[in-house]
Amino acid sequence: MDEFMQAAIAEAEKGLAEGGIPIGSVIVHDGKIIGRGHNRRVQQGSVVLHGEMDAFENAGRQTASVYRDCTLYTTLSPCPMCSGAILLYGIPRVIIGENQTFMGDESLLESRGVELSVLQDPTCIKLMEEFIHNSPTLWNEDIGE
Amino acid sequence: MDEFMQAAIAEAEKGLAEGGIPIGSVIVHDGKIIGRGHNRRVQQGSVVLHGEMDAFENAGRQTASVYRDCTLYTTLSPCPMCSGAILLYGIPRVIIGENQTFMGDESLLESRGVELSVLQDPTCIKLMEEFIHNSPTLWNEDIGE
Repeated sequence: MDEFMQAAIAEAEKGLAEGGIPIGSVIVHDGKIIGRGHNRRVQQGSVVLHGEMDAFENAGRQTASVYRDCTLYTTLSPCPMCSGAILLYGIPRVIIGENQTFMGDESLLESRGVELSVLQDPTCIKLMEEFIHNSPTLWNEDIGE
Repeated sequence: MDEFMQAAIAEAEKGLAEGGIPIGSVIVHDGKIIGRGHNRRVQQGSVVLHGEMDAFENAGRQTASVYRDCTLYTTLSPCPMCSGAILLYGIPRVIIGENQTFMGDESLLESRGVELSVLQDPTCIKLMEEFIHNSPTLWNEDIGE
């Protein structure tokens, strides 16, 4: 598997080990990870730091020219908030671990010209299937349900 | 003026006094402010804490039933990221100070059934006009340009 999706999965697994929601993300520029993150709802009581948002935050302040040459990797299909952040910063490509356990706002991203690639990766699917099975209330909270 | 938009403006002014970007927001539930915030790009080096996002974060973890009975007030038309957060959490009503200096993703919000009200408030417009005039580079960074 792509080393960057592996890094996103490693973030998701770190989140799970912390008692959190197992979703991870990395942002790649010029062949290098400039930001990595995972969901922080449990760990920090954060309602905005989904995995993708945490990766944006950890990448820090970047210029538009950098964002427009980045690829974002995420273990799970991006929700409306994370999709909005991808649009705000003009990230042109998103690699998605899977969208079987949760379908995010992929149609919005595609309608705005973002290039998506969905891997349906078994490790990503298993992480979320087990988590949703074990913690349905927490999962529903994370997706506003 | 509505006391809640006044509270959002007070947040924007607090941000400006801190050397930050003057955009503020409050989230109201049952006639009470449950979260207030302002843009934290300068103060915390944050790329995700726009005013609306900071208000969500400061409101903390809420149930879906609370979010679905909230009104979000923001001094400026919400960008794609903040619009996405509004959609994720199912906020049904957004009161917008102005959309003359920046038009956010109002069409997306409306297409998903969010009720918008735009005040074109002179105080909100003046805050942004002066800020954009004085700090165009910082402003462009905040909107991904």
